[in-house]
Amino acid sequence: MDMITHILIKFVRLTMNSSFSFKVSKHQTGSMARSGKLMTPHGVINTPAFIPVGTKAGVKALTPEMVESVGAQAVLANTYHLYLEPGHKVIAKAGGLHSFMNWNGPILTDSGGFQVFSLGSGLDGGVSKISAGIRERGSFRCSGTICSKVKINENGVIFPSFRDGSLHEFTPEKSMDIQHDLGPDIFFAFDECTSPLADHDYQRSAMERTHRWAERCIERHISNRTAFEKQLLFGVVQGGRFEDLRRSSARTLSRMPFPGFGIGGSFEKKDIETAVRWVTEELPEDKPRHLLGIGNPEDIFGAVESGVDMFDCVSPTRLGRNGTLYTRSGILNIRNSSFREDFTPIDPKCDCYTCRNYTRAYVSHLFRSKEMLGPTLGSIHNLRFLISMVEGIRDSIVEGSFFDHKDTFFEEFYGKT
Amino acid sequence: MDMITHILIKFVRLTMNSSFSFKVSKHQTGSMARSGKLMTPHGVINTPAFIPVGTKAGVKALTPEMVESVGAQAVLANTYHLYLEPGHKVIAKAGGLHSFMNWNGPILTDSGGFQVFSLGSGLDGGVSKISAGIRERGSFRCSGTICSKVKINENGVIFPSFRDGSLHEFTPEKSMDIQHDLGPDIFFAFDECTSPLADHDYQRSAMERTHRWAERCIERHISNRTAFEKQLLFGVVQGGRFEDLRRSSARTLSRMPFPGFGIGGSFEKKDIETAVRWVTEELPEDKPRHLLGIGNPEDIFGAVESGVDMFDCVSPTRLGRNGTLYTRSGILNIRNSSFREDFTPIDPKCDCYTCRNYTRAYVSHLFRSKEMLGPTLGSIHNLRFLISMVEGIRDSIVEGSFFDHKDTFFEEFYGKT
Repeated sequence: MDMITHILIKFVRLTMNSSFSFKVSKHQTGSMARSGKLMTPHGVINTPAFIPVGTKAGVKALTPEMVESVGAQAVLANTYHLYLEPGHKVIAKAGGLHSFMNWNGPILTDSGGFQVFSLGSGLDGGVSKISAGIRERGSFRCSGTICSKVKINENGVIFPSFRDGSLHEFTPEKSMDIQHDLGPDIFFAFDECTSPLADHDYQRSAMERTHRWAERCIERHISNRTAFEKQLLFGVVQGGRFEDLRRSSARTLSRMPFPGFGIGGSFEKKDIETAVRWVTEELPEDKPRHLLGIGNPEDIFGAVESGVDMFDCVSPTRLGRNGTLYTRSGILNIRNSSFREDFTPIDPKCDCYTCRNYTRAYVSHLFRSKEMLGPTLGSIHNLRFLISMVEGIRDSIVEGSFFDHKDTFFEEFYGKT
Repeated sequence: MDMITHILIKFVRLTMNSSFSFKVSKHQTGSMARSGKLMTPHGVINTPAFIPVGTKAGVKALTPEMVESVGAQAVLANTYHLYLEPGHKVIAKAGGLHSFMNWNGPILTDSGGFQVFSLGSGLDGGVSKISAGIRERGSFRCSGTICSKVKINENGVIFPSFRDGSLHEFTPEKSMDIQHDLGPDIFFAFDECTSPLADHDYQRSAMERTHRWAERCIERHISNRTAFEKQLLFGVVQGGRFEDLRRSSARTLSRMPFPGFGIGGSFEKKDIETAVRWVTEELPEDKPRHLLGIGNPEDIFGAVESGVDMFDCVSPTRLGRNGTLYTRSGILNIRNSSFREDFTPIDPKCDCYTCRNYTRAYVSHLFRSKEMLGPTLGSIHNLRFLISMVEGIRDSIVEGSFFDHKDTFFEEFYGKT
């Protein structure tokens, strides 16, 4: 079988899966923004969509019913964490993530690539999401090369567990096998997530390796017929902050039979409308694009404008657990003593469980008293805020009023704080 | 007005409150066990009843809807904690505890007495619930006298805050004022909670002071007409482990116009069917009796058998947060590695949210991964276990089969562990 035939067969098989489909229904004139529908075996994801993170098979501090109540259409769990605890084999025996965590909507898993590099390199270095000042972990002392504790070769990556330092190896094949066991609806190819400070030479060779790994991921996925019929494999575009590499990565992956794409790497705020746009300009129009690990209001608006369909991020729940709460008129720290006797909701315009039932005074009291209900109520509110914001974006695209909507949103968001 | 008339008026006024009533409907032959109904302005409490504790205006790790879902008929909050944070005045401004914490069922508050002595004396001494080995805090190095950091005189108690050591004073009047601000349906007179190791002389003088304080509590409560019409004041029986004092305390308080009684103090397992029974034998039949701070299965069965109607205790939620879970066939520690691949519910016979939706393997994973959802699911399960157990006790009293029910329960509970 020659190469063309080989790729063609893979393409047909990967895209013929009848449980899935993606349809863009509307574009916003003057931008790349679009709205659409992604069908999965566990339900529809209307796009643009913000997807809460349930790292360890559970959105932190929330029951699945709470996650559903904030309007979440899907959740994203982490391959890296679940591989370490409780182990993918345990989740396979439980019947997969849906059954294990009691979430019957669509589930995504990442490939483990980001965590291998961000958590594997210890506190002194590694990869981080730095958009809007939210740091995943660590700093950037390993510029240009991968930090010493993570060893990369053509076969895969050897990394220390963030839990106990024990050494583990991920290869593209292993990442696929783990994600087949986890059983999400959508999962990502195993990629090398580089430091944003890495130089052009390093980024290029890492990117090229990521492309070779992408081919191996596809091979492995196709070889598992059961998983193949229920799960959709997205490729992950890399290339750091270099336009030539980002475009090249997007073009190369576009030629592989992926039914959708993740956009990986670390981003600064300013990259969202450049690095992301370089990628979306190259990716096929008819396939969904997921920007990995991005989730603050500015970045979401910017990414949607650049043609991104889906987002996931820990930030709304992490901020929520910490008492940093979104409102339509800005961000507040609910521990602030000014809220002690404030008997209004966190955001009077919010329709979430927290805002319908509790006052700022009560939530403030819970945080000051270190009651676990505080982080729960804060997470519910922040998730609902972001998801409702993305619902508003989606509606505005359908109505053709995205730019007006964006202006109004940020006028209120920044106007009053 | 002579003393008799004075007391008579108080009695009439305290018992004529039409928003409340208590009716014993059934007795179990051969025991003091009884079932009944306590009507409050916020709903009925069918007795015997186990009442979850919501120390700081919230049952730890649970939403009010979760508390309702486990069959809780009421919650009990702590005057001491709420006085310190957020302050009773804040809760009064919020419209009282019901509105502040979003719980529309009956609410009880304790008087603050127990916490003043158990938390006020620092880690080296104080009062503790020691039933079944569950220690509230501290040990018993202050035998016979109150530990030095808590100062008692006829007027009241000066105590250090457990939060910052700042000094505060509680008097019977102040405890009433705080509890009027908190606005529970049922609250308790301010008592001195002695060390169980205190000698007879000390227990007697403390008890007599508690009786004088009880009179002052009644006076203060009657003087607040608004609170009086919505809130029911229970007296608290003290007397340590001395039969003469316990009986004397119960008799003395019975002559005061309290519409119900708390049984206070520290208990060991063996005291439940002696010290408690001395008290219930003296208390009037037609008024409800609440055993303060007791909540393990053996103690509840024993106390019901001795004629107690209501219980509250932090233990099911505290144990639940810690992964120590009740099942009909005994207690298990869900962190145990034997549960890693156990895909059965925590208790196959349990109808709680946790058991209906999650496996031991998942809950075990949550605890091992330090996910907050673990303590939430554990608390839901333990509360439902205890409340469902008490529902079973209530049914068995109605059917006249309390003793058979008790035997069956403990055969299973101890038989298989």
